[in-house]
Amino acid sequence: MKIILFFIVSLLSQSFSYAQKPRAREIGIPFEGTTGKFNAITDVKGVEVGYSTIISGQGKNIRGKGPIRTGVTAILPRGRNNKPVFANWYSLNGNGEMTGTTWITESGFLEGPIMITNTNSVGVVRDAVLKWYVKTGWYKEDFWYTYPVVAETYDGFLNDIYGFHVEEKHVFEALNIAKSGVIQEGNVGGGTGMMCLGFKGGTGSSSRIVKIKDSTYTVGVLVQSNFGGKKNFTIAGVSIGQELKDTLNYEFKAPPSYQPGDGSIIVVVATDAPLLPHQLKRISARVPIGIGKVGGRGENGSGDIFIAFSTANPAAFQRENFTKVDQLPNDLINPLFEATVQATEEAIINAMVAAETMEGINGNKAYALPHKTVIDVLKKYNRVK
Amino acid sequence: MKIILFFIVSLLSQSFSYAQKPRAREIGIPFEGTTGKFNAITDVKGVEVGYSTIISGQGKNIRGKGPIRTGVTAILPRGRNNKPVFANWYSLNGNGEMTGTTWITESGFLEGPIMITNTNSVGVVRDAVLKWYVKTGWYKEDFWYTYPVVAETYDGFLNDIYGFHVEEKHVFEALNIAKSGVIQEGNVGGGTGMMCLGFKGGTGSSSRIVKIKDSTYTVGVLVQSNFGGKKNFTIAGVSIGQELKDTLNYEFKAPPSYQPGDGSIIVVVATDAPLLPHQLKRISARVPIGIGKVGGRGENGSGDIFIAFSTANPAAFQRENFTKVDQLPNDLINPLFEATVQATEEAIINAMVAAETMEGINGNKAYALPHKTVIDVLKKYNRVK
Amino acid sequence: MKIILFFIVSLLSQSFSYAQKPRAREIGIPFEGTTGKFNAITDVKGVEVGYSTIISGQGKNIRGKGPIRTGVTAILPRGRNNKPVFANWYSLNGNGEMTGTTWITESGFLEGPIMITNTNSVGVVRDAVLKWYVKTGWYKEDFWYTYPVVAETYDGFLNDIYGFHVEEKHVFEALNIAKSGVIQEGNVGGGTGMMCLGFKGGTGSSSRIVKIKDSTYTVGVLVQSNFGGKKNFTIAGVSIGQELKDTLNYEFKAPPSYQPGDGSIIVVVATDAPLLPHQLKRISARVPIGIGKVGGRGENGSGDIFIAFSTANPAAFQRENFTKVDQLPNDLINPLFEATVQATEEAIINAMVAAETMEGINGNKAYALPHKTVIDVLKKYNRVK
Amino acid sequence: MKIILFFIVSLLSQSFSYAQKPRAREIGIPFEGTTGKFNAITDVKGVEVGYSTIISGQGKNIRGKGPIRTGVTAILPRGRNNKPVFANWYSLNGNGEMTGTTWITESGFLEGPIMITNTNSVGVVRDAVLKWYVKTGWYKEDFWYTYPVVAETYDGFLNDIYGFHVEEKHVFEALNIAKSGVIQEGNVGGGTGMMCLGFKGGTGSSSRIVKIKDSTYTVGVLVQSNFGGKKNFTIAGVSIGQELKDTLNYEFKAPPSYQPGDGSIIVVVATDAPLLPHQLKRISARVPIGIGKVGGRGENGSGDIFIAFSTANPAAFQRENFTKVDQLPNDLINPLFEATVQATEEAIINAMVAAETMEGINGNKAYALPHKTVIDVLKKYNRVK
Repeated sequence: MKIILFFIVSLLSQSFSYAQKPRAREIGIPFEGTTGKFNAITDVKGVEVGYSTIISGQGKNIRGKGPIRTGVTAILPRGRNNKPVFANWYSLNGNGEMTGTTWITESGFLEGPIMITNTNSVGVVRDAVLKWYVKTGWYKEDFWYTYPVVAETYDGFLNDIYGFHVEEKHVFEALNIAKSGVIQEGNVGGGTGMMCLGFKGGTGSSSRIVKIKDSTYTVGVLVQSNFGGKKNFTIAGVSIGQELKDTLNYEFKAPPSYQPGDGSIIVVVATDAPLLPHQLKRISARVPIGIGKVGGRGENGSGDIFIAFSTANPAAFQRENFTKVDQLPNDLINPLFEATVQATEEAIINAMVAAETMEGINGNKAYALPHKTVIDVLKKYNRVK
Repeated sequence: MKIILFFIVSLLSQSFSYAQKPRAREIGIPFEGTTGKFNAITDVKGVEVGYSTIISGQGKNIRGKGPIRTGVTAILPRGRNNKPVFANWYSLNGNGEMTGTTWITESGFLEGPIMITNTNSVGVVRDAVLKWYVKTGWYKEDFWYTYPVVAETYDGFLNDIYGFHVEEKHVFEALNIAKSGVIQEGNVGGGTGMMCLGFKGGTGSSSRIVKIKDSTYTVGVLVQSNFGGKKNFTIAGVSIGQELKDTLNYEFKAPPSYQPGDGSIIVVVATDAPLLPHQLKRISARVPIGIGKVGGRGENGSGDIFIAFSTANPAAFQRENFTKVDQLPNDLINPLFEATVQATEEAIINAMVAAETMEGINGNKAYALPHKTVIDVLKKYNRVK
Repeated sequence: MKIILFFIVSLLSQSFSYAQKPRAREIGIPFEGTTGKFNAITDVKGVEVGYSTIISGQGKNIRGKGPIRTGVTAILPRGRNNKPVFANWYSLNGNGEMTGTTWITESGFLEGPIMITNTNSVGVVRDAVLKWYVKTGWYKEDFWYTYPVVAETYDGFLNDIYGFHVEEKHVFEALNIAKSGVIQEGNVGGGTGMMCLGFKGGTGSSSRIVKIKDSTYTVGVLVQSNFGGKKNFTIAGVSIGQELKDTLNYEFKAPPSYQPGDGSIIVVVATDAPLLPHQLKRISARVPIGIGKVGGRGENGSGDIFIAFSTANPAAFQRENFTKVDQLPNDLINPLFEATVQATEEAIINAMVAAETMEGINGNKAYALPHKTVIDVLKKYNRVK
Repeated sequence: MKIILFFIVSLLSQSFSYAQKPRAREIGIPFEGTTGKFNAITDVKGVEVGYSTIISGQGKNIRGKGPIRTGVTAILPRGRNNKPVFANWYSLNGNGEMTGTTWITESGFLEGPIMITNTNSVGVVRDAVLKWYVKTGWYKEDFWYTYPVVAETYDGFLNDIYGFHVEEKHVFEALNIAKSGVIQEGNVGGGTGMMCLGFKGGTGSSSRIVKIKDSTYTVGVLVQSNFGGKKNFTIAGVSIGQELKDTLNYEFKAPPSYQPGDGSIIVVVATDAPLLPHQLKRISARVPIGIGKVGGRGENGSGDIFIAFSTANPAAFQRENFTKVDQLPNDLINPLFEATVQATEEAIINAMVAAETMEGINGNKAYALPHKTVIDVLKKYNRVK
């Protein structure tokens, strides 16, 4: 009974807060660069995002019962269009999982959606994607094998992670409701139970518009942000972590081997600029600079894995025919590097600004970033008017 | 009823053939080097192997019903001892999956068993390994996250692969019955439905004993062998594929995009030589030479992914304490390279010699390597007495 | 005549300025972490640094005559002790050169000094190192081949780089005078003609002391710093580049394809912590975070290549004998990541604080960072008292 | 006087033998696949090859005097056309050097010729390439920096390698006389002093013509072949090394740490198939299979480094403009893999068939492969009629 009630409240508060939730720029945090319309990965035309958010129960953790604070995120590079995109990836610190990467390296292509969930549900999500392909007729023609891309971050401080609560239906939900336009941030999808830089983390997104010669391109980033120690937490060059060192943040019983910085961040970079696979590797390898700016160091206990894809060249993937593909000259790539760094930084802060205080298993708690306090600190350092 | 009967017959025939099955050396195929006692990966002390073989039904493929020709293979580096081993990996052609590799690259350690199954069951196997850890108390102490290593090859020409027949219980079975000593080969475990170099493939193993200075080391290899086109199939330097080009081999309806060489090979190399992670990368990068000798080319449609680990340095993994680890000088590593090449070659041939003709879905058939004919060809080229 | 005079003045002014030159901390720039005694790479016991600085002529560039603004830097991991060190490397943006890296990747060892010079003199320096080995009997025993490690950055805006002025004698000089203790910074050695983040760049160094369990380790960094666009130049989180956007900086005629951010940075990280080669890869892959903090983005025109080595395990390299090597557990590595980021950041700023305004070929000029103005800007943002 | 005489004789005998020298196919060694007109890398249109062969003196090694048995090889991807080609590279065993690789990885382009020389002359060759650019106006437009690609193998058993006899003029010679069409093999260019698989090695080449859909492509390979132990030496699947184990081969005083298999092989793969950089990585990673077929194992003392480039897409490299590039679908790449393996194998055997017995420093001798004996052995195994 309580659980049902909880659900209703939760859903209400979610839609309520969704309509209201300010984003990092709106509360006054300064960022560089020009964003797209939604300031989200969905500013890259064709990209769709869907979430399945699973929140249930509270109190003591009974394995298999809950409390549950987890979910699934789906990013579809070309929406329902199943044409592969050029892609590549980079791991700053491989204490994590992203399936399907050897074929991306080899082929240069990402053949389906990117899924993000919790550490222990990578398997169920992976196989469910194959089932979803069958259900939806995703591969219409000559299809026999493919390797779903599923990444994860750990939510076991708030979620009954060894209860294995993600099911196929959640995967289908995230995939089926994926859409373009405005996307939710904070405690949603795979990002539901995240903790980041000393506060509540989650899902965040941002985008940049860059002009290269006569063309305009978009770089969009989505993060599932669960990394970093409070000590290094930095916004706009100001050490928020040290200024807020006495602020409430986590309340949880960590295992003896826990260290600040344990966690993970999965970063998905989308662009419509015509980049070849080796150029997308270059993009993904600039993500650490964005992470570094907010205080990540690729800590040992963190799975910091990044994937970049390009929606340009819609006909790049062929089985039978030679193709011509557009290529951006290396000499013109710098604005895309800068956009990647900027959008990564802002997506992380957006995730934290959107995430609300969450109580999970055993009363463990991750507190939301205190917006007003942050702005006050930035003012102290003359970073906002 | 028929299915139950089939199972009994199958099991009977398996144990029968198991006792009888000759191996490649026994039918007269020449190989170089000295094998261990079992000529198997289990010659490396501590290594245990277990299979769950799932064979059921025949006739037309009804998705979700069968026929089923698949399974799960488990390789436990130190048996029930949960201490991580130094490890590394290499992908000759990444058209496949091996989960858990980013952490191996980063940390230098493999933290649990290596699992091999079919392409579409990687997910269920992955999560089941986590459940098995919980069930068995694998991680006794301060455990919160780990990334199971699960590899795959495609058995969809014989198996109802989109029926998703591998279940948790099969994973537990393979893990629970894993043992040292003699191991089965051919149509067992994850290798059940394999096709290789124009004939029936499967699971195979081999080992080499090498002397380095005053020490004796073992290199053991296990393959799940599902790769290669008949045209290049070579044994002992003789082009078996071309000599047997009119021999019965596959009977199956392949999709339009099918090409000879589509398939995969997963190779697991174990050694008790004290190699550091970067040296194990070197070991895994020599596997292609063994594969090349029997006719593989790392074809585009093949997932050729290799992992090597060392059982030396049982205390190498520590959370809290500095450790001293034994290191073999690079200048002494050549015999281990040679052993890796030789044992890979022999393990593949062993898999093919052991594998029996199999009829799978829709009457698709992969014929066993005709032992006598092979020996006759080798005689023609003066390779056997 | 003028040239000789110039030399004398130059040498005088160098030694003069050397004694006087304040470092970044001394002029009030804030940094985190505890430095070693010299706040330099030489705080890692055994590490020696030597320079050959070649400055001559002024005015119009006559190829082969000058003006010359270049040099050679030598870093000897164990001073005159020729025992190889464990090492590894990472390239953030490979628009540059570091020779000798394939053998480092393969073997895990760096077998000699690290040399840094200008882009066009990599060859002469490389071969000269081999000659120096012969001259000095560096390899006493069974020596036949080795691959010198030589990196470079481009000084062609100030130096007659196509005049190829680096000679063997300069290489020998840098190697022969290498020493521990206080080291010069700014316009010295290979860093003589550098330009960085809109101002004069050069050679810089810094170190950090970290405590891990009961042990104390040092991380030392030396940079040859020639990268970055003024726009992103950041100190202590404050955008110096934007605040000083109207300040005098470069005066030079750049080729049409020149872009801000063209240049390079070579980073050498030394530590006495007992890290294995794969762990040193991890160290080198954290350098981009330090570079990012001062404004680098791994721009397309930049050769950002980093090498890390450990002076621990003095007997790690053996040809004939098995060895035991000390290993720091991965779980304890975070302080070394942090130290690498911090020391990289400070070494870059140290290079810029030490570098003096230089006029090179054709009257091209790179202005020194204006110390007082920088401090004023930091005060404006409440970063210094 | 003696030296001059020697030179004349040498040149006479070279041109004499050159006209006469049979190649591997001509003496009856069987290979698979269809070669191009010249059975050489120059079958790829545009590719030019030039050598400078330096042979002088005999008798005792006096460092700096000789005897000299070395040289320089130049491969120009598009001849005198300076447009960069897509390229990539792979190292099977990195005990060697290939400069310029980080920029190939990063940019996807090879910007100039590939040079091959001895281990100790990489530096002089590297800088001389820059000087040749200046002399020839190679880069006409906006040129400031580039990273010459120079690889090496060790010829110190026959050559006074520490005499540093390669000079700029030899580099210019190799570059200036480079041409298409028939190319020399054996003791020429950088391959002059090579030893391979127990016999005299050298420079070799081969090519394959493949048909893919309606297009015909060429794969050309050039090797500088200096690797492998006699024990594993295999031709056409027959263990020549073991059959000829009592044949005369090397006579030289090796250093104590010398092991069979020490040496190196540099492999250059050219194709006119339209491959992107990540696909050229795939090509280069198949070279080990060809090397393995003749007996290489990537031994510890061997520098086995491979580079592949595509002459397709002549306008791929642009600084300012977006370009369209042709791309071969991954699904059609297998014939190029096979061609790479086959041409690598044949190029190595061609090098050995062409190489003549050479006496070098201190009377050290490497004997030529005994053609007739080899054919007799192949007959014994029914490999030739």
